[in-house]
Amino acid sequence: MKHIEVNIKHALGNIGREQIEALLPEVADGLSKLHNGTGLGNDYIGWLDLPSRIDSGLLADLKSSAETLRANCDTVVAIGIGGSYLGAKAVIEALNNSFDAYISSSEAPKVLFAGQNIGEDYLYELQQYLADKRFGIIVISKSGTTTEPAIAFRLLKEQLERQMGKAEASKRIVAITDAKRGALRQLATEEGYKTFVIEDSVGGRFSVLTPVGLLPIAVAGYDIEALVNGAREMQKATLEPNLENPSALYAATRNALYRAGKKTEILVNYNPKLHFFGEWWKQLYGESEGKDHKGIFPAAVDNSTDLHSMGQWIQDGERTIFETVISVDSTRHSVIIPADDDNLDGLNYIAGKHVDQVNKMAELGTRIAHVDGGVPNMRITIPALEERYLGQLIYFFEKACGISGYLLGVNPFNQPGVEDYKRNMFALLEKPGYEQDTEAIKARI
Amino acid sequence: MKHIEVNIKHALGNIGREQIEALLPEVADGLSKLHNGTGLGNDYIGWLDLPSRIDSGLLADLKSSAETLRANCDTVVAIGIGGSYLGAKAVIEALNNSFDAYISSSEAPKVLFAGQNIGEDYLYELQQYLADKRFGIIVISKSGTTTEPAIAFRLLKEQLERQMGKAEASKRIVAITDAKRGALRQLATEEGYKTFVIEDSVGGRFSVLTPVGLLPIAVAGYDIEALVNGAREMQKATLEPNLENPSALYAATRNALYRAGKKTEILVNYNPKLHFFGEWWKQLYGESEGKDHKGIFPAAVDNSTDLHSMGQWIQDGERTIFETVISVDSTRHSVIIPADDDNLDGLNYIAGKHVDQVNKMAELGTRIAHVDGGVPNMRITIPALEERYLGQLIYFFEKACGISGYLLGVNPFNQPGVEDYKRNMFALLEKPGYEQDTEAIKARI
Repeated sequence: MKHIEVNIKHALGNIGREQIEALLPEVADGLSKLHNGTGLGNDYIGWLDLPSRIDSGLLADLKSSAETLRANCDTVVAIGIGGSYLGAKAVIEALNNSFDAYISSSEAPKVLFAGQNIGEDYLYELQQYLADKRFGIIVISKSGTTTEPAIAFRLLKEQLERQMGKAEASKRIVAITDAKRGALRQLATEEGYKTFVIEDSVGGRFSVLTPVGLLPIAVAGYDIEALVNGAREMQKATLEPNLENPSALYAATRNALYRAGKKTEILVNYNPKLHFFGEWWKQLYGESEGKDHKGIFPAAVDNSTDLHSMGQWIQDGERTIFETVISVDSTRHSVIIPADDDNLDGLNYIAGKHVDQVNKMAELGTRIAHVDGGVPNMRITIPALEERYLGQLIYFFEKACGISGYLLGVNPFNQPGVEDYKRNMFALLEKPGYEQDTEAIKARI
Repeated sequence: MKHIEVNIKHALGNIGREQIEALLPEVADGLSKLHNGTGLGNDYIGWLDLPSRIDSGLLADLKSSAETLRANCDTVVAIGIGGSYLGAKAVIEALNNSFDAYISSSEAPKVLFAGQNIGEDYLYELQQYLADKRFGIIVISKSGTTTEPAIAFRLLKEQLERQMGKAEASKRIVAITDAKRGALRQLATEEGYKTFVIEDSVGGRFSVLTPVGLLPIAVAGYDIEALVNGAREMQKATLEPNLENPSALYAATRNALYRAGKKTEILVNYNPKLHFFGEWWKQLYGESEGKDHKGIFPAAVDNSTDLHSMGQWIQDGERTIFETVISVDSTRHSVIIPADDDNLDGLNYIAGKHVDQVNKMAELGTRIAHVDGGVPNMRITIPALEERYLGQLIYFFEKACGISGYLLGVNPFNQPGVEDYKRNMFALLEKPGYEQDTEAIKARI
């Protein structure tokens, strides 16, 4: 069985292996809290056995809905923010052609995203683009009242009904929302939308393997069953409280580094298709751990691009960082560097090599340089950018995040800080119910 | 005259205004070193008077070359890495339609980028995409031997010659390179390419207002004269050693914060079109300041998207960060939030408002929440996403970077750490001339 692998050998030096092993009792405690539901935030650990719980009926229903959208739409807009955006975006970008947006003849509908910002120009240009499109909507919101997706959905629903008629529009809208309550559930019932359920026990940043992520991924044409199967493999591989468990190994190592003063973790890829995987990871770890005035600061770079940008800082800046590299073993396609008679550019020494062989030497050369420079380096190998391995990688990071949050001593499953700006925004916008906040905030500005 | 403005009022608290003012002698010293060319790295300050030095002949030549490419090409690939990529990318993305990639009917040629990574699948898919395109190439490299762009150019040059014939290909390739020396200069002379010069005194990350940035921007259809004019305005506005000088104010404030323990600066936008401006900024500051084991760690977020990702960490994580917000005063287009009779989503309280009014309240509400949470906040206002103001913003950040690097006590204009991974990579790839390094590194792995 091919699977992802974690190598911490080059993270040692600043810390020793014994410092990682010393965390094993805490790791065991964290795993026990997760598996027995006895830790902080235990109302939100439905993601833990999600891969094994997803039944074939739900997968079939998702595939069928995706097929309907694919058959009827040239464009599908997935409306959501945070975890209702980043998971699907990360997987689709990892699997898509790099130039998919430019290829107008492609068979699959284009999957666009909205409701992940409050950009007036973004929404204007989206509406203008959709004016002559046979589009559909996947609207993702537990409550149906989150500001960003609610604005986008209000605008696009009206446009779709205008362009297609109300009856046809209803067939082209799929709602992913609470099982029973909330504005979007009520609307979906009234309008007869196809719906899927967001479970109470799975928070947004852990939702990629629920319909939230799976439906847009299926619409883009990718194999959600393979994705879930990969996650199932990793669910089984991350049960034991030892360092053979890759999630335990990663969680223990990053916490040992953090306790030794390494305050920032940089997730590194050497494949531009993984850019949004880094964004997904930043939400997963930043939102789970950044609380109580602690937590590793999550950053991400795309190499070798960013070796010519953040590379200098990483090599020579403050020695408070470590790197976690996601390295993809094999490419999908083959490009050989050609020979050239004149050899003005001096590249003939690598003529005949695969481009990726050079890429791998850039990675290795960088690891050696950064470790020499005082930057501990973990490496996660993934056999290929395929659904199954992405499923493994997703579950690996989720499980590690739960363990890591408990090692840090926080509730990894809440996000109280996200409410603060919302309350101020509602007060400033004079939202009904916020009258006292409005008065208070107006006195301050 | 409308122009960008810097507001540091909400950066105070953790530090007082007196701590910023106390840096004025150092600011004056830094400005003097820049203006008189007496500081570290003084061979690389050609960017300082670049806006006022660019003559109308060069601008006309750039516009003419851009027109030729626009007339003959449906796609132009800009090949470059680091500063030879990020400046043009940042300005084009800031000005482009958000869905430009998807709009196949647009008049301007698509500007794609290559040579900014070593992605085998990326290059394969690019070559496949270009197979039926009338494409052109802008190749940007001082030496012509930098690995990433050299590989991309070798591949695409061969493809273009195959598709168009050698003579026609030569008319569709523009080289931006050293005035006299180097592989690309020699090749351009032999093949008769149109060329523009990379000056010795302007480093990559300061090169966006040279042909390196200006030609791709002009090809994308934007007004490079207005861009340069904006920079000229800012060149005049950043001469004096006082806190009316916006670059001095920004440089002094961020250094005062850094000295007070704020180790990470997060550049924040509330407009997704500024995403790559953040990437440009990260190179500018990371590469200029991340050395000698010091320097502010530069990170960037796109809000409100990332309020649902990094927002929790920023609100409640370690209190070692500050934020610099780029706020765009006005939008290009108008979208009003519609009323809805049922109001299930509860949005009628903002019906009739512009989307951007909500966005601005998200920004203000976030500033208040983050400042309350211990995150100092600077705000840079830009009147609109237009060439002139982007030119102001670019020069503002460049000038501030020079001052800031001297305040930090480093040479802001070199990047010795970028060489380390390259040397290792060449050794691993057994590049001629690296025999000793090859032997040494092979003994280590």
